[in-house]
Amino acid sequence: MSILVVGSIALDSVETPFGRAEEALGGAAVYFSYAASFFNHVRLVGVVGSDFPAEHLELLQGRDIDLSGLERADGATFRWSGRYDFDLNEAHTLDTQLNVFETFSPTIPDSFRDSDFVFLANIQPGLQLDVARQVNSPKVIACDTMNFWIEGAYEQLVETLGAVDILIINDAEARELAREPSLVKAARAIMDMGPETLVVKQGEYGVLMFNRHSVFSAPAYPLEDVYDPTGAGDTFAGGFMGFLSTAADIDDTSIRQAVVFGSTLASFNVEDFSLNRMKRLEMDDILGRYAEFKQLSHFEEIATD
Amino acid sequence: MSILVVGSIALDSVETPFGRAEEALGGAAVYFSYAASFFNHVRLVGVVGSDFPAEHLELLQGRDIDLSGLERADGATFRWSGRYDFDLNEAHTLDTQLNVFETFSPTIPDSFRDSDFVFLANIQPGLQLDVARQVNSPKVIACDTMNFWIEGAYEQLVETLGAVDILIINDAEARELAREPSLVKAARAIMDMGPETLVVKQGEYGVLMFNRHSVFSAPAYPLEDVYDPTGAGDTFAGGFMGFLSTAADIDDTSIRQAVVFGSTLASFNVEDFSLNRMKRLEMDDILGRYAEFKQLSHFEEIATD
Repeated sequence: MSILVVGSIALDSVETPFGRAEEALGGAAVYFSYAASFFNHVRLVGVVGSDFPAEHLELLQGRDIDLSGLERADGATFRWSGRYDFDLNEAHTLDTQLNVFETFSPTIPDSFRDSDFVFLANIQPGLQLDVARQVNSPKVIACDTMNFWIEGAYEQLVETLGAVDILIINDAEARELAREPSLVKAARAIMDMGPETLVVKQGEYGVLMFNRHSVFSAPAYPLEDVYDPTGAGDTFAGGFMGFLSTAADIDDTSIRQAVVFGSTLASFNVEDFSLNRMKRLEMDDILGRYAEFKQLSHFEEIATD
Repeated sequence: MSILVVGSIALDSVETPFGRAEEALGGAAVYFSYAASFFNHVRLVGVVGSDFPAEHLELLQGRDIDLSGLERADGATFRWSGRYDFDLNEAHTLDTQLNVFETFSPTIPDSFRDSDFVFLANIQPGLQLDVARQVNSPKVIACDTMNFWIEGAYEQLVETLGAVDILIINDAEARELAREPSLVKAARAIMDMGPETLVVKQGEYGVLMFNRHSVFSAPAYPLEDVYDPTGAGDTFAGGFMGFLSTAADIDDTSIRQAVVFGSTLASFNVEDFSLNRMKRLEMDDILGRYAEFKQLSHFEEIATD
């Protein structure tokens, strides 16, 4: 089983109440890849500029992430800078320089077309659909999106969702996409657009997963402090798809477990800037925190007769 | 085992996107009593005016709620009117007429002083402490409060918390009370003020329960529509204390179950205005939804060896 991810690679400058990072390794495809690499072999498709530090590529290669789909373009790498206040649910973007990412048109190498699990990180929905069509017969296609595309490329996004199995977005995006304030009704409307499964990230409140037959509510891990929420959503997606790619069956049981693995990886990621916490992470830490999630949400049944 | 509640009895006029109620039965002590009455005998201490409809008293008596601590004062009953928009987490108060509730000074009848479980609904903290001292040797004292007292009677509230076992508030109140944006740190600070257990209501996101040894995260029931959130918090407290009063031991296990029973009762209550949904409720419905909460939060462990 192999996992393909297509998305941004960035140099992020981030300020939070706990400190700052300057031009640190970031981007959706990077966070996703690193998190998924704890579970399986990852293939990354993205673009960097000629200024991209070699040490970042070495870090990813050291995780057995296949970079043969990485385009090296003339020009500067995508840069994002932002600030978080004490309400760490909301990023205040200070500056975005798309640079080489602006004209990114992902080409999937022939050797990646047999990928079983595909994650389309947040890029233009038309490009997402184009990628989906370049993969031969994936078992699971999951994708992310954002308010910018919901507002500016709605029809194209809906077309893309028709080709997607799992949509992973936050609650505000779910409500906006479905044009419906009730999240339960919004979920049903979104599943009518194509995805069999909708995963709704609720930041510090956890995650809701909807399919046609059930709803699953995963708690958030009660951290004392969130040092830097950058990349939490893509790290979630990486843990989610990473675990799912190891499951014997893709069903309600394994998708629930995947949600908790995603939450686990994301809870570690926000404990430090950039990928710093994930770099120190071992599989034993992940399994230990997964068990903590179990304890966190456990309560006894009531005997009825 | 018997449960004592002291708090408001009101006539509420409420408008939500789904309709309106005019001078409907409400008030913290009423919602609490009704919810708790599914589990145990409840004793209510409160005040109504001479205009209070007899049918409301009959409704409560029909639930075996002891009204011998109910004061009937000359004047008008406490009235509250408010409006909720699509964000049903926030009430917009249109009018508050305290009326006979303004000078309410609760006196606990001798026959109530042996109560085992005491709930001090949201009233002036000095009055809450006064009530706590009138009960002989309760097993559990729980209380609620609000931003008005946190801001206006902080010292008195902290003194009251020294006599309380369980504090049940929402997340904004917890952060404000502890003067700490991190909820985990706020919980620790609040437990240092006295309560061994802190129950933090997070509206549509569920409930967090903290004690010295563990954290429990209960999901919210995914309702299609919340028709009227009025009284949800006190209904939660009623289900919580009601179940707890039937538990063999007051410990982490039973408190977690109590949180889910509280969430269950609250999830029913918001399905209609005033107490209308609770009036149609049977114990089988409650146990059925409790089981749904179990399914909602269930995921399989990972075998590790």
